[in-house]
Amino acid sequence: MSSYPKFTIYDFPTGPYPARVRIALGEKKLEHLAEFELIDLFKGTHKKPEFRENLNFSGTVPVVKFENGDLLAECTAITEFLDSLDGNTVLTGLTPRERGDIHMFTRRVENEFLEPISLYFHNATPGLGPDVETYQNHEWGLRQREKGLRGMRYFNKLLVTREFVTCDRFTMADMALVAAMVFLAVVKEPVPADCDALLAWWARVQLRPSVINRVTMSQ
Amino acid sequence: MSSYPKFTIYDFPTGPYPARVRIALGEKKLEHLAEFELIDLFKGTHKKPEFRENLNFSGTVPVVKFENGDLLAECTAITEFLDSLDGNTVLTGLTPRERGDIHMFTRRVENEFLEPISLYFHNATPGLGPDVETYQNHEWGLRQREKGLRGMRYFNKLLVTREFVTCDRFTMADMALVAAMVFLAVVKEPVPADCDALLAWWARVQLRPSVINRVTMSQ
Repeated sequence: MSSYPKFTIYDFPTGPYPARVRIALGEKKLEHLAEFELIDLFKGTHKKPEFRENLNFSGTVPVVKFENGDLLAECTAITEFLDSLDGNTVLTGLTPRERGDIHMFTRRVENEFLEPISLYFHNATPGLGPDVETYQNHEWGLRQREKGLRGMRYFNKLLVTREFVTCDRFTMADMALVAAMVFLAVVKEPVPADCDALLAWWARVQLRPSVINRVTMSQ
Repeated sequence: MSSYPKFTIYDFPTGPYPARVRIALGEKKLEHLAEFELIDLFKGTHKKPEFRENLNFSGTVPVVKFENGDLLAECTAITEFLDSLDGNTVLTGLTPRERGDIHMFTRRVENEFLEPISLYFHNATPGLGPDVETYQNHEWGLRQREKGLRGMRYFNKLLVTREFVTCDRFTMADMALVAAMVFLAVVKEPVPADCDALLAWWARVQLRPSVINRVTMSQ
């Protein structure tokens, strides 16, 4: 364990995307490798030229910075890195078919649920406030809200017959779905009661220590 | 090799996203596993309810269908599956840090270049024609064009000091960048001459057999 690299994570503790990486740390019991630096999203720190130049061109969190200065952004990429350290890739897939399924469902959560709700937040609600949301496309945002709610219903239907999104265990795909549920709460969008399979999954995964402890990690 | 599963790929031979999976097949020398079924994008086959219900909820190609009926969509997921079959994951990363870097740069190509150009195509050009493009947000599309061209310049700058996008070899991240360049040609967007590092990379990778042969694969 002592040979694993230490790093700093630049993120915002309650953010939906940061949740994905914090949960990965918890699931892999690697919390001791990370220190955290707060990026204040409501001040738009992540959209400033210095952030884009020095940490992440895409202007998003979380970002991992290693002790030698190397940078690693994107939740799936950071999860791949963390999950591969011990060679026991339970979060990202132990076989070729598992790897395919987990990456497919992770992208599907992102494409059909998480990213649409994020686009709705930033384009058709006050978002991070007028100083940060300097351009909004209201019509696009509302359309993405509809897309995200359709995606939510797709995952509800999927979970009627499954305990987890794929592979019969908690994986990176569930971690993305946690982020989508966190983002739904941010935009104050209630989950309809008829989405009972999704709500039951959400009640179950919120009992996991990695999900419970994510916000207070390293504080 | 004979124990690898055979499958059908539903795609459109000249499409940008299909290129990613066809190149992966070529790089891994797994062309013999695949048969191809044409999905006519200009007829909107991929947006029809039957396609979304029976092949891919997201309404995109390529989609892999295994002989038992199992489905695998999303380019990164299919590439992960193909690259893992022989245990020599040269396209997706041989070490934890490589896995992180390749996934980060693949997502960055998608987020900053490939997907913005796709959104421009579908929202601010005739796209796949009026029967398929039933909703367009012209302003969003034009804004995505600008974003994509900024992303193009980011990758040009990156390639000034690198032969490949990451890891000093041709990986999944380069395959995503190929797709972005293919999509640029679809929208008839010329690459400015001052993007000489990107153009030199593009000239180099177009000499690879996997890139040359992708369109005629299994025809």
